[in-house]
Amino acid sequence: MHKVIYDTDPGVDDAMALLFLHRHPGIDLLGVTTVFGNASVDTTTRNALFLKREWNIPCPVARGASVTFDPSRHERPWPTMVHGHNGLGDIDVPETIDLPTDPRPAYQFIIDTVRAHPGEVTLVAVGRMTNLALALKHDPEIASLVKSVVIMGGNFYVPGNVSPVAEANIHGDPEAADFVMTAAWKVVVVGLDVTSVTTMSRSYLADMAKAGGPSVQLLADLSQSYIDFYQHAVEDGMMVHDSCACVYVVAPELFDTIEGSIRVVCGGIADGQTVIKPAGRHFPPGDWDNLPSQIACIGIRSQQVLDLIRDVILGKAVH
Amino acid sequence: MHKVIYDTDPGVDDAMALLFLHRHPGIDLLGVTTVFGNASVDTTTRNALFLKREWNIPCPVARGASVTFDPSRHERPWPTMVHGHNGLGDIDVPETIDLPTDPRPAYQFIIDTVRAHPGEVTLVAVGRMTNLALALKHDPEIASLVKSVVIMGGNFYVPGNVSPVAEANIHGDPEAADFVMTAAWKVVVVGLDVTSVTTMSRSYLADMAKAGGPSVQLLADLSQSYIDFYQHAVEDGMMVHDSCACVYVVAPELFDTIEGSIRVVCGGIADGQTVIKPAGRHFPPGDWDNLPSQIACIGIRSQQVLDLIRDVILGKAVH
Repeated sequence: MHKVIYDTDPGVDDAMALLFLHRHPGIDLLGVTTVFGNASVDTTTRNALFLKREWNIPCPVARGASVTFDPSRHERPWPTMVHGHNGLGDIDVPETIDLPTDPRPAYQFIIDTVRAHPGEVTLVAVGRMTNLALALKHDPEIASLVKSVVIMGGNFYVPGNVSPVAEANIHGDPEAADFVMTAAWKVVVVGLDVTSVTTMSRSYLADMAKAGGPSVQLLADLSQSYIDFYQHAVEDGMMVHDSCACVYVVAPELFDTIEGSIRVVCGGIADGQTVIKPAGRHFPPGDWDNLPSQIACIGIRSQQVLDLIRDVILGKAVH
Repeated sequence: MHKVIYDTDPGVDDAMALLFLHRHPGIDLLGVTTVFGNASVDTTTRNALFLKREWNIPCPVARGASVTFDPSRHERPWPTMVHGHNGLGDIDVPETIDLPTDPRPAYQFIIDTVRAHPGEVTLVAVGRMTNLALALKHDPEIASLVKSVVIMGGNFYVPGNVSPVAEANIHGDPEAADFVMTAAWKVVVVGLDVTSVTTMSRSYLADMAKAGGPSVQLLADLSQSYIDFYQHAVEDGMMVHDSCACVYVVAPELFDTIEGSIRVVCGGIADGQTVIKPAGRHFPPGDWDNLPSQIACIGIRSQQVLDLIRDVILGKAVH
């Protein structure tokens, strides 16, 4: 079993990934930690509780960061044109959900849970890296106690999505991401190189909803305006960004990877860019030296990934 | 005829490109301007004069910049492991060559020559962009009088060669390159995306030398230690970086290109990175807005490029 903490800012594609994690028979979802990003942390936490209730997800939800790791960073408006004003595609969501959050802040929940299962926990982080950076800062030893960190974020050899070089999750808190990427734990970066080519069509999702009943219909409903948004880049479908990171946990063989030290540009016109120094490539001494080698995904079997997402969400046997 | 000013820091691959420009029947080489980079400007100017004498190149040589466009930048050691201590692979080169340089500094030579042939001159720049930036700064109107600017430098969707994100020519003077790329003239960037996959083997060059006599033998001789250097990246051969830019002038159909505004990162860990915002891709308002659209090469027919270089240098009919 893969013990997973899911750090998320639901978020439309976050919702699909949550249902995948909840329903995969090989995943033990220990907790959901929320972070600001696709909407305020108030909204993303409310959304996590809403999805927990709708989908009967038993694990706790811990509320996370509401500002960047370096609090002097200037905040930008929420990406309402992507995820809607309520973060879930503007479907009907109650203002508040009558479920408690975990009493601890997200970073403390991460620390405690990792310490309770040394060497066993995979952190799947699909929003800004703020909670992970705070956990590392408050308890640096967890780096050696985490099994691995799988991130949806960044881009290496393809353009970004919020600037020509930067992806939204990393751009949203570059200092946090640089701290996380350069720490002595195993990080796998599942970024736009693979997620931007992994698109689920509207009809594929509709077929899933038909077969899956109300829970999957909810997923399809909240994804409709997101699919509308993606019309500038996708024929008639959505990039399933966050689910790709979850699939990596259980099926890494569906990805092509390279290894190397990874840094995040903080400041300037390339703010929030992820940059890898591929292992075995030689450069003059520089900013990527003497750092842990991490893993970056640069290729993906998209159709197999999509089919796995569907099969897991529909509760079909997973090979 | 293509009227060309060749801005260069010879430099091993610079030498091959110079012989190509000199011998191509469709190119009228109006002048060679030198710049620091592969060696000091004293050395690169001496080398340009040496090659002019050895190859009977009639055009003038004008000495160019010895420091970066922003003179507060810290200078790094010359890349002697690439181009040798004398910039020409440490073959025997006299300390001084008894030929005059043009009395004008390179930037003034560029300005005067462009103004003498309005709309006709292509600037082929294969070193740091310092001379071009100085010319633009001293006479901004030349932007509208130049036919095009073809640059060997930068990288878009492949790693750099002096850092994980930066190529040597651009990294050597980022402020100059950003000034040149964002100016209102037509810039074509021939960077590592295409030059790093265009490698001439030692034996191919040896065959050229056999067929071409002493002038081509000189080229082969000065290239040997450069080929040795490239053993970390190439089987047994050299990347013909600068010649690719020259080939673009006469055979652009051998390249795949994209268009968009281009910026150069100045400072920070991504210092010297070239970044394109591809035309038609949408991002939130940012640093690439309202700039002229330039051309970036991202694909190349390498074997045809190599064969064209060979045929031109050997004086064979060029189709």
